[in-house]
Amino acid sequence: MTSEAGPTIEGLYAVIPAGGAGTRLWPLSRASSPKFLHDLTGSGRSLLQATWDRLAPLCGTNIVVVTGVAHRDAVAAQLPDLPYDSLLAEPSPRDSAAAIGLAAALLERRDPDAVVASFAADHVITGEDRFAACVAEAVAVARAGKVVTIGIEPTHPATGFGYIQAGEPLAVEGAPRALSVRSFVEKPDEATATAYLATGEYRWNAGMFVVRASVLLDLLADYQPGLAEGLRAIAADPSRLADVWPTLTKIAIDHALAEPAARDGKVAVIPGDFGWDDVGDFASLAGLLPSAGDDLKVLGTAVEDVLLHDASGLVVSGTGRTVAVLGLDDVVVVDTPDALLVTTRARAQEVKALVDRLKESGRTDLT
Amino acid sequence: MTSEAGPTIEGLYAVIPAGGAGTRLWPLSRASSPKFLHDLTGSGRSLLQATWDRLAPLCGTNIVVVTGVAHRDAVAAQLPDLPYDSLLAEPSPRDSAAAIGLAAALLERRDPDAVVASFAADHVITGEDRFAACVAEAVAVARAGKVVTIGIEPTHPATGFGYIQAGEPLAVEGAPRALSVRSFVEKPDEATATAYLATGEYRWNAGMFVVRASVLLDLLADYQPGLAEGLRAIAADPSRLADVWPTLTKIAIDHALAEPAARDGKVAVIPGDFGWDDVGDFASLAGLLPSAGDDLKVLGTAVEDVLLHDASGLVVSGTGRTVAVLGLDDVVVVDTPDALLVTTRARAQEVKALVDRLKESGRTDLT
Repeated sequence: MTSEAGPTIEGLYAVIPAGGAGTRLWPLSRASSPKFLHDLTGSGRSLLQATWDRLAPLCGTNIVVVTGVAHRDAVAAQLPDLPYDSLLAEPSPRDSAAAIGLAAALLERRDPDAVVASFAADHVITGEDRFAACVAEAVAVARAGKVVTIGIEPTHPATGFGYIQAGEPLAVEGAPRALSVRSFVEKPDEATATAYLATGEYRWNAGMFVVRASVLLDLLADYQPGLAEGLRAIAADPSRLADVWPTLTKIAIDHALAEPAARDGKVAVIPGDFGWDDVGDFASLAGLLPSAGDDLKVLGTAVEDVLLHDASGLVVSGTGRTVAVLGLDDVVVVDTPDALLVTTRARAQEVKALVDRLKESGRTDLT
Repeated sequence: MTSEAGPTIEGLYAVIPAGGAGTRLWPLSRASSPKFLHDLTGSGRSLLQATWDRLAPLCGTNIVVVTGVAHRDAVAAQLPDLPYDSLLAEPSPRDSAAAIGLAAALLERRDPDAVVASFAADHVITGEDRFAACVAEAVAVARAGKVVTIGIEPTHPATGFGYIQAGEPLAVEGAPRALSVRSFVEKPDEATATAYLATGEYRWNAGMFVVRASVLLDLLADYQPGLAEGLRAIAADPSRLADVWPTLTKIAIDHALAEPAARDGKVAVIPGDFGWDDVGDFASLAGLLPSAGDDLKVLGTAVEDVLLHDASGLVVSGTGRTVAVLGLDDVVVVDTPDALLVTTRARAQEVKALVDRLKESGRTDLT
């Protein structure tokens, strides 16, 4: 079942949970056209496709995508090499433990030694060789029975991410950098984040998990027995999906698995020394794009169609219109066929509040 | 030839020079779709139509519009009651002395006692009764042989307008407020404008002129003999328009007629106590529009389609799209099908510089 394209890691299966509307990237990203389906780097590939491109050298076509029924066709269109039975459509959103757990339960039956490696569909990674080396180490530790996460080396005391506190080195062959994990901690305030960085023990939790499928399900059977039982029941008889799925506990895999397993000393971390960005908002997006000159970042349109006069910022346009900005610094203009957003980089985080107001006013057509 | 609609002033002919692209209102206003053709007040009538509506009670259908050939059809469509022979199309732009002078030369032949009253097609006036009363006084003084202007009572030391310096009262029956004019002065700096206001002698030059057609042409024959001769030649034989028009001196009527006539003691002013705005830029436009709540001014779109979050300003949209602004004060967003402008009220004057850059880069499709 592995691809002929290059050297892959035997028995490794990537799982890509493709969910989340990317609300802070409204109006570009929205429930009907979520972030992972968009090319946010100007590379010509969507974030989902770039995730595929990054994983295919490691897994061949041993890649499973779990997405909502509404996005099944769009995912299939973007990933023509994804095997038909590797595209799992959730009947309804039941959070990441159910999504990743379902893929693990199916893979556990397909290959008893399967190692599953779960990566978000909508993050940007640079330094693919270093990423691949981290995954290889994570797989080595996962084969030894651990739940393994890849923790991103922090570049600044971010308050928007959870952190992973590492402990002592683990002596696992093929994984020289592996450390034990003391705990997962929630998003800190800035003072706490600064203190974290000073210790050198903390890394960003990017939601990357590598674990044997059977270990994942067995641990889940301890911590969330109903969830594990339901997932294994669906895997044994996929015709039960529609009945069982709505009964599954809605819980993030961090809470369902990673945190209790860390308390039990069963989690390891590989420090991720590659570039990583969750493209959480337009400020983050602006940081990823190359400069188009004169303090301008542009996505989706030709530089010639943007005119800045004593201005700077980010222009995202999918309409082909000329966008002119006069006398505003660090502005963010996002131009889509049915909605236009004007804000600043400093306020980019608050786009969610604006979308919440649109939802409250019944504008589900736009959100 | 007068309308049956109401009491009109016998022998009064309005001339509306409809030219000028309104560059500072780009991308709403542009050469192909100039300011006077737009409804900028949300009244449902364009500035040209509102000018017609204001003048019809005074002149009936004794109204002549002078416009560029490119706008002839649009003007005719907007003014269905404008007589066919009262729509004059300039073969090429030759400034206001030629435009208004051509109308005067034609009217001089039609009615030897004709009084012409010239008003821009793209200004906003409030207090129509007071406007009408000023015009009636101006006509009385014009019949006595003067060139009469209506000078707007200044509300602040504006630096964007020329000023009219008034002298002693004139004793003309039917024109109790008429004053002689000492001089026309160019746009002043702010200190000079403030000093002007302190004297009480100065009023804004809004380009409103009321004068007997024959007086206009006779004075022009003194100050710009070639121009007067050419205009009277066209009026005598309209088939000569195409030949003669390109030879006419390109000069504003202020320089060609009003300024030298003032030096010769032949100009009077009626103080204009009505509301007046030249809608020179988006800051001016914002000041004219009623508040749509929460420091929002809206033109061309439904208030429901504008979402401000910790923001204030002006949104002009002709696209029906939702416009969301987050965290910017006094912003100006102008949303048209092929171009989008984002600026602030404070920088609204500089839109012209931006349009100049577009022209330089060859984007004549947008300007």
